Amino acid sequence: MKFTFHNPTDLIFGAGMLSELGKTVAAYGKKALLVTGGGSVKQNGTFDRAVKSLSEAGVSIAECSGVEPNPRLSTVERGAGIARREGCDVVVALGGGSTMDAAKIMAAALFYDGDLWNMFLHGQKNRRLPERALPIVTVPTLAATGSEMNCGSVITNEETTIKSFVTAPCLYPKVAIVDPELTVSVPKHQTAFGVCDLITHVTESYFNGVDGTPLQDRFAEGVILTAMEWGPKAVTDGNDLEARAQVQWASVVALNGWVQVGTFGPYPVHMIEHVLSAHHDIAHGAGLAIVNPAWMRFAARTRPSRFVQFAERIFGITPKHPEDPDAIAEGIDRFEEFLRSIGCPTRLFEAGIGDALLARYAEDTVIVAHDDQGRLPGRPAMTQADIVEVLRSAL
Amino acid sequence: MKFTFHNPTDLIFGAGMLSELGKTVAAYGKKALLVTGGGSVKQNGTFDRAVKSLSEAGVSIAECSGVEPNPRLSTVERGAGIARREGCDVVVALGGGSTMDAAKIMAAALFYDGDLWNMFLHGQKNRRLPERALPIVTVPTLAATGSEMNCGSVITNEETTIKSFVTAPCLYPKVAIVDPELTVSVPKHQTAFGVCDLITHVTESYFNGVDGTPLQDRFAEGVILTAMEWGPKAVTDGNDLEARAQVQWASVVALNGWVQVGTFGPYPVHMIEHVLSAHHDIAHGAGLAIVNPAWMRFAARTRPSRFVQFAERIFGITPKHPEDPDAIAEGIDRFEEFLRSIGCPTRLFEAGIGDALLARYAEDTVIVAHDDQGRLPGRPAMTQADIVEVLRSAL
Repeated sequence: MKFTFHNPTDLIFGAGMLSELGKTVAAYGKKALLVTGGGSVKQNGTFDRAVKSLSEAGVSIAECSGVEPNPRLSTVERGAGIARREGCDVVVALGGGSTMDAAKIMAAALFYDGDLWNMFLHGQKNRRLPERALPIVTVPTLAATGSEMNCGSVITNEETTIKSFVTAPCLYPKVAIVDPELTVSVPKHQTAFGVCDLITHVTESYFNGVDGTPLQDRFAEGVILTAMEWGPKAVTDGNDLEARAQVQWASVVALNGWVQVGTFGPYPVHMIEHVLSAHHDIAHGAGLAIVNPAWMRFAARTRPSRFVQFAERIFGITPKHPEDPDAIAEGIDRFEEFLRSIGCPTRLFEAGIGDALLARYAEDTVIVAHDDQGRLPGRPAMTQADIVEVLRSAL
Repeated sequence: MKFTFHNPTDLIFGAGMLSELGKTVAAYGKKALLVTGGGSVKQNGTFDRAVKSLSEAGVSIAECSGVEPNPRLSTVERGAGIARREGCDVVVALGGGSTMDAAKIMAAALFYDGDLWNMFLHGQKNRRLPERALPIVTVPTLAATGSEMNCGSVITNEETTIKSFVTAPCLYPKVAIVDPELTVSVPKHQTAFGVCDLITHVTESYFNGVDGTPLQDRFAEGVILTAMEWGPKAVTDGNDLEARAQVQWASVVALNGWVQVGTFGPYPVHMIEHVLSAHHDIAHGAGLAIVNPAWMRFAARTRPSRFVQFAERIFGITPKHPEDPDAIAEGIDRFEEFLRSIGCPTRLFEAGIGDALLARYAEDTVIVAHDDQGRLPGRPAMTQADIVEVLRSAL
């Protein structure tokens, strides 16, 4: 194992912690760009509480509302324009993963010369990472993406329908205020998609990471088991604040680096899903629920012992031998059953997606991430034909 | 769950990473106080490699060698004097937990008015925490204390034979360079004590923390299982670099806050052991191996379900009911057997400690840490009589 780790984000976690927003932000600036999504925070009062807390701490705001699911580059540019015109010196993201991801790039845009999309051009020589950003404070209203405590962002270029990602140290939020009370109004299906999203964050590194990371394996399994224990409770009773808190804590840890450290796993399931949600009006977590089990059945051929470990440690299945195909199949089947049990789709037709564009999805996937042979990185690396095969198996 | 988390230390992990020392330190200063322990780093060449790396990066050094196990306040004062006289602007700790703990307080001493021991006076009104320190870079040569990536320090006041601790944000190392190659020369018994130390870090929060932290439970169990899998290999073959790496990674995670976050568990086993190693020439990890099983048998009466969970998840014992005393006893017995199997003592007589001073040990323990009724904090809080009972059961 050789790796480095650094995550400087200050975490404030707990029900009611939204009240800390004002004094937290005041430590970084006097005028905040307050970034929000589709409007639920206005309907449920969260927005007013946030503004009140900011105002009481002497922080004025400029508003950038309406960040859409699968946030667009043009929305990022709009927000950056507001921040520039209004002289904002700090950015507050109040919303789900889309809102936080967009806010991060808005914060970096003020110091970035040239086309913002250059941040997202993987493997191209004119790629340039952001090096500086306004201080960012995140307040997630959904337990899912983990964006609140990491330095990643996923943005869609609506001109090309390409959804890509960037990670850069300057995108680490200064502070993440994670208040599970803000998630009690999240509808059942979105709660379930969030549970799937967080689990998929750790299955990616668990299945695609390097060998020889036993402690990280245990941590990944711990996140999965916790999400499977508490996720259904949060779906069943949205007002179960304890369940909301456990799910949200799992979602933070699932992608703040504690599980992934030293595993160097690529994210093939995410890469494939990003294309689906760039082309179709489908929630990211729902897309993951469709792609992940299909991908697992494909990838298990390459690394059977890891999938036996998954079956054994997550579902208590006793394998007949270390690469037992029956144990593997049962483990994946039970994982898919779990996703269905909380209300996730696991087949493309359920999301209204047919087989017309499978080749295009595969093509778009490897545009964003590819090795020197043009394959999608992962264990195994996937050709476009492999991606089509996986998607076809999920029809 | 309500909590905050922040750990800004940059971690560089991997065999051979000692070579990064010079350029790492050069980012923080030009003259390093290089703190070392009893001399093993000089015998095995690590010291020379460190100095070479520093020198090549243009960093000169002032040396403070000879930090003893259970480091003394006078040693800290000596090191601080060297740093002050020599104009050091960065502190490098190259050694085990004692060396790192002492180096942290030396770094803080330059900005601290008055008696350094005031940092360590828990519950007393003249206590004052350090607020500023020279930049600290840690290079552990032993997998045990986790001091390399946390903000804690344990120091012994030799005038009073009191061993106490302090935690303060300014004591976070800027960078921890964790190179498992540096641990291959650690003797078998010290390797075993390190394994016991790291496991005890997580059992403290696991048994003494608040209820309702299922993910932290899983993480703690992950650290214990990993240490129990790889610890014996590192003890059996000190040159097994893979085992050394896994044990050392577990030791970093065991006390960098990832497991303890939000659990608010006190450290009664550590508190009792600190008194033993303040009075007797006994390694901290060996003392923990003696105190922990005895303490567990005592504490299990108060929180049986947690000890059943331990038996179940660590040793695969199936309880007959959620508070099954047989499962509890078997779990603790097997834990004690594990400690013995790697060469740890688990009885006081093995460390040459008899029953003459049991009351004194109990008295000293509650001097350092006590609640408003004078009891040692923990689950359960312990009177001095309880402490004597636990120690007597370990005679």
